[in-house]
Amino acid sequence: MKIDILTIFPEMFNDFIGTSIMKRGIQKNIIDINVVNIRNFSRDKHKKADDYPYGGGPGMVMTPQPIYDAYQSIEKIDIKAPCIYLTPQGEHFNQNLAEELSQYPQVIFLCGHYEGVDQRIIDKIVTHEVSLGDYVLTGGELPAMVIIDCLSRLLPGMLGNENSATEDSISSGLLEFPQYTRPYEFLDQKVPEVLLSGNHEEIRKWRRGEALLKTKMRRPDLFNKLNLNKEDRILLSKYNK
Amino acid sequence: MKIDILTIFPEMFNDFIGTSIMKRGIQKNIIDINVVNIRNFSRDKHKKADDYPYGGGPGMVMTPQPIYDAYQSIEKIDIKAPCIYLTPQGEHFNQNLAEELSQYPQVIFLCGHYEGVDQRIIDKIVTHEVSLGDYVLTGGELPAMVIIDCLSRLLPGMLGNENSATEDSISSGLLEFPQYTRPYEFLDQKVPEVLLSGNHEEIRKWRRGEALLKTKMRRPDLFNKLNLNKEDRILLSKYNK
Repeated sequence: MKIDILTIFPEMFNDFIGTSIMKRGIQKNIIDINVVNIRNFSRDKHKKADDYPYGGGPGMVMTPQPIYDAYQSIEKIDIKAPCIYLTPQGEHFNQNLAEELSQYPQVIFLCGHYEGVDQRIIDKIVTHEVSLGDYVLTGGELPAMVIIDCLSRLLPGMLGNENSATEDSISSGLLEFPQYTRPYEFLDQKVPEVLLSGNHEEIRKWRRGEALLKTKMRRPDLFNKLNLNKEDRILLSKYNK
Repeated sequence: MKIDILTIFPEMFNDFIGTSIMKRGIQKNIIDINVVNIRNFSRDKHKKADDYPYGGGPGMVMTPQPIYDAYQSIEKIDIKAPCIYLTPQGEHFNQNLAEELSQYPQVIFLCGHYEGVDQRIIDKIVTHEVSLGDYVLTGGELPAMVIIDCLSRLLPGMLGNENSATEDSISSGLLEFPQYTRPYEFLDQKVPEVLLSGNHEEIRKWRRGEALLKTKMRRPDLFNKLNLNKEDRILLSKYNK
């Protein structure tokens, strides 16, 4: 997958690209990340990429020309490559969108700043307006990294099999059960006995019960969508006592 | 505000700390960011910080001892400092939580990896389990940066007044209206005439109408919570024609 990022803060991506999973993906030729500095395409002598909003109001708006020229400079391997604009006005990112995006050979990200970009650039090049959630950030760079991290995990060969369980958990609509590792005793707290029993069926039941309970307490929205089977109801009724 | 970050990938925070708003906040002594490498507190000769889960199953679990010792090494300026564990099992981050956290003089972040951390460390030191949303990421580092970016914007002196409009928009429960800046004509698309009219009342109405419409189309969940006044209903009925 080829990923192109249009940004006025290209240096924010250095550590991200150089670290851990992303670096491995690049070395293995699974992913290619190309950061484009929008400012380099400004025709203004001070390399300005923003201007005052028409109609007045606070803040600055990113001008369309440098963004458009930066976009045009990208080598298109897929004529239908989605262009994701990161903005608080967008749809909320989720695992389904990550899966959708992971099917494309190329995805382009446009990182907004200030009061956003000129609407005409959205109309012209953007296919998805996406937000991480209802909170305000300084710019689209961190959200772009979050989305790239999430969707790159879905690319074949990016992960060993060992990590796939977490994805399965999210897809199943259930939060994960509590995990324990060594030492057996830590600050006077012992690992639950069942986990040491060697009885796989009992361990499975305990974990299923804990996951159901946690989901019920914390995420009733997810819990209400579950199709509980008979065993699930028995496990939950145990806790209710 | 003092921010402490417990992580096994401290290098991921270099660019984040060195860039733009965060750098300014540090220089102005508004915010102080202290990244603690959990691995440095491992008593294992290979500096291991994870181990197999009790009860079996895929993946690795972060061991409690290095995390606890790293946590204990933090200089506490606030005995009640919240400790945020970034995990897909957590409550979803939002602007309200950012505002709550911004009231504390100190906030501690614990970045999870793999199949998460040992439950006993959660029980012992964690006050909030937080998730950005229902999607799986490689670790808690990017979510920690997102949250720190969001809450630091709320600290007095961190921003000029020019940026506060965006926050107001989110709090108002309305998406923002489209923005336009120079040039007047771009790729044959002109700026809407009303924005050049100089008629502030007409501009205000146009923007309000656009914001209401966008919210209605994209975020019915937000739209249904709005208390529409008479003007709002008139503006919307214009669009329905």
